[in-house]
Amino acid sequence: MADKAEASKGAVTEITPQSENFSQWYLDVVRRAELADYTEVKGCMAIRPYGYAIWELIQQAFDRRFKATGHVNAYFPLFIPAGLLMKEKEHVEGFAPQVAWVTKGGDEELAEPLVVRPTSEVIIGTLYAKWIQSWRDLPVLINQWANVVRWEKVTRPFLRTTEFLWQEGHTAHETADEAQHETLKILALYKECAETELAMPVVDGQKSESEKVAGASRTYSIEALMGDGRALQAGTSHNLGQNFAKAFGIQFQGRDKTLQHAWTTSWGVSTRLIGGVIMTHGDDNGLILPPRIAPYQVVIVPIPRGNWQETVLPKAREIRDALQAAGVRVMLDDRDAYTPGWKFAEWELRGVPLRIEIGPKDLEKSAVMVARRDTREKGTMAMDGLVPAISARLEEIQRALYERAVKFREEHTTRVSSYDEFKSIMEGRPGFVIAGWCGSADCEAQIKADTQATLRNIPFGGAHVTGTCVKCGRPSPAEAWFAKAY
Amino acid sequence: MADKAEASKGAVTEITPQSENFSQWYLDVVRRAELADYTEVKGCMAIRPYGYAIWELIQQAFDRRFKATGHVNAYFPLFIPAGLLMKEKEHVEGFAPQVAWVTKGGDEELAEPLVVRPTSEVIIGTLYAKWIQSWRDLPVLINQWANVVRWEKVTRPFLRTTEFLWQEGHTAHETADEAQHETLKILALYKECAETELAMPVVDGQKSESEKVAGASRTYSIEALMGDGRALQAGTSHNLGQNFAKAFGIQFQGRDKTLQHAWTTSWGVSTRLIGGVIMTHGDDNGLILPPRIAPYQVVIVPIPRGNWQETVLPKAREIRDALQAAGVRVMLDDRDAYTPGWKFAEWELRGVPLRIEIGPKDLEKSAVMVARRDTREKGTMAMDGLVPAISARLEEIQRALYERAVKFREEHTTRVSSYDEFKSIMEGRPGFVIAGWCGSADCEAQIKADTQATLRNIPFGGAHVTGTCVKCGRPSPAEAWFAKAY
Repeated sequence: MADKAEASKGAVTEITPQSENFSQWYLDVVRRAELADYTEVKGCMAIRPYGYAIWELIQQAFDRRFKATGHVNAYFPLFIPAGLLMKEKEHVEGFAPQVAWVTKGGDEELAEPLVVRPTSEVIIGTLYAKWIQSWRDLPVLINQWANVVRWEKVTRPFLRTTEFLWQEGHTAHETADEAQHETLKILALYKECAETELAMPVVDGQKSESEKVAGASRTYSIEALMGDGRALQAGTSHNLGQNFAKAFGIQFQGRDKTLQHAWTTSWGVSTRLIGGVIMTHGDDNGLILPPRIAPYQVVIVPIPRGNWQETVLPKAREIRDALQAAGVRVMLDDRDAYTPGWKFAEWELRGVPLRIEIGPKDLEKSAVMVARRDTREKGTMAMDGLVPAISARLEEIQRALYERAVKFREEHTTRVSSYDEFKSIMEGRPGFVIAGWCGSADCEAQIKADTQATLRNIPFGGAHVTGTCVKCGRPSPAEAWFAKAY
Repeated sequence: MADKAEASKGAVTEITPQSENFSQWYLDVVRRAELADYTEVKGCMAIRPYGYAIWELIQQAFDRRFKATGHVNAYFPLFIPAGLLMKEKEHVEGFAPQVAWVTKGGDEELAEPLVVRPTSEVIIGTLYAKWIQSWRDLPVLINQWANVVRWEKVTRPFLRTTEFLWQEGHTAHETADEAQHETLKILALYKECAETELAMPVVDGQKSESEKVAGASRTYSIEALMGDGRALQAGTSHNLGQNFAKAFGIQFQGRDKTLQHAWTTSWGVSTRLIGGVIMTHGDDNGLILPPRIAPYQVVIVPIPRGNWQETVLPKAREIRDALQAAGVRVMLDDRDAYTPGWKFAEWELRGVPLRIEIGPKDLEKSAVMVARRDTREKGTMAMDGLVPAISARLEEIQRALYERAVKFREEHTTRVSSYDEFKSIMEGRPGFVIAGWCGSADCEAQIKADTQATLRNIPFGGAHVTGTCVKCGRPSPAEAWFAKAY
């Protein structure tokens, strides 16, 4: 396979090795795999078709689950009158420094400026106040897929951009219990979807007071571990208590005829997940996509030897059609301006899970060559029974990627018992550090100042472990997970 | 059916009859069917879940067709630097009076203001200039689903709002012929989709110079006729020639090695289509939805008599499950806080194509009552073979709605031979008027000033009819369709 080696070499030189500079590797992959591009608007990216196709598959995976759990989609305005944003005190303090201001419409200076939504609690709050009158109107279970804007100083494609795409769920309930149940139900949905579809293992738990979102009573998150040992907050679910209901007058007549404030939640995942997928699975050859969110799960590369257009190409088309009929997303790369070697490297870079090579010799043997992107293993597969074998292999890859990521996380998670140990780990190759924590914001802040590690969350699983705070030695009601984070 | 008569009466009083005030009827339907709501942001609406579910079905119908014709989706930034908008002269003149200006980000006054995209030609143009280098990179066939903002003085839900949702296709081609072919291919796709899925007949043709979009070489449109005899521009497809390619430097090395400017197109349909559906099919009882875009195609209302919860309800559930399994979107309305009569009126108002009523007597006869929303006919259907019978009935309704709309258009379209006739028709109940037109903007403007009718388009079908201009008497190369329009 001289072709391949050469072409791969060519491609690889365009991508900085992870070990050399992980951050540059990430940017190289985003650019070379044509996932996103910079634009003339500071901090805003364009999501290119290949990147957007991944996003569509991620969207569908979440949207299916939202609908199966009784949620419906809607759409709310992009703009929020400035005065309205001010209504929930903590919320405005959290978001005001980050918003884009519209001060002029057409030729007219606006009497009251509008902000471009950084999130939609307040605009939705004013509408829920109109829509909800009686306990019979509850629960309201609405989600929105939308763009939001936060004025960011330092940006990075997918991970942190001035404008990004996300979904934001906003629900209203009759009781505190129901709101809490919803908050946790969504967190569990996020975890299951991230792990099943993105093959990205996550730790689910509660955020500390310092890290919860502006205006929430309790914030929960799922946290993933990237290939460089840094954590990525991959989704959040907030129990907003009655804070927003009180600020926006979301009241209903209860079963007992008294007027009560509703209990609300909000929750979101964003295009940041694409960054998470890149950094969870990718390697020095580029992207590795889990089959379930791969725009192409299989690429077929015909080997152009002899009268291949009369022999190989029809068979390649037949395989493509058979795979398509079985629901496999497949691309037949029959472009003749490119060599097979170039195509091998190109589709590896773009992370296609399986490559099928078919040439005159394979035809004779009634077999094809199949190469896995994740392990780079290559072997023959009989033409007979090819479709079920490919489907099974795709499932195997999906599972293998998840297991590999779990193993990586296990290898990069350390439970520490002393602060010195904490610090020395954080100075080396990072990862998760599990430690006792007393619950004080002071200890949390000191740890961050000393190590750059932030408290990611307090996992549900660890909630009953007792011990002492790694910083101050006072009793620790539950273990917390710390990491340097994106 | 005393229940029904009473409940219907109750509901109908909430909706102004079309004959009394069509415009108020429209607003009543939008509000009462919970399609959209006003917000605290001037000119911006919230699309409520029922309205958004219709939009999702419309989106899917178009998106499927875009993908089947080789288009891919992507996402481009919301903001455009002011200087960039100025690059295409006609374009900026067309859109600058209509844009929202962002002048501040966080605490910082922006050196160069940003405009919120009114459409994305310019931001996409700068990226295509980077992405397209060689004829091998062409065609580029990208679509985006996005929100856009145009500062409107007078707004109406779905039909004209400051922010709206749409898709905008942006393609680049090697030759003028290919760009023209794409422009017309999309127009044909729009027509087919509007007629097949929305049951909304449209006239496809070319816009006059005065009505074409800012910066285009040629604009084509599909035009529908609403229930009040006014036209609605339901979609446009623009051949942009090399105008944007020259303004933004979209150049490629051609097959002959010379550097050439690409030929580009753009095209869009928006949430305005929902307004079109309401006004094409609705009646004094509310919305009538074509089955293909109805969130619920069938509603099942159990009649609560005797021990219905042990007898009727299980059967109703069985029917629901059987219909769902056959791919029918069905709602079983088993809420016990509402009477059947109330439910009948409510789901009629929301335009559900078919209602199944099932009570103890129906059970005895092994049959159900089925009521059509469009004709309001009601009759029994045997339980045996119910699912295929319902599916067939839904197809029949889809066809009937289309045919009824075609008939309505035919009855409201007049070919005139004198200007007096033109004016007298426009003074009565409006509709389309077909007339010869010399091609001059002066005659077009005079007609508009005299009658309020605008030139909707010059249909392809009428392109070879010759005659004289209805205004000035000079030769008319082709007939034009005029109407008062939304």
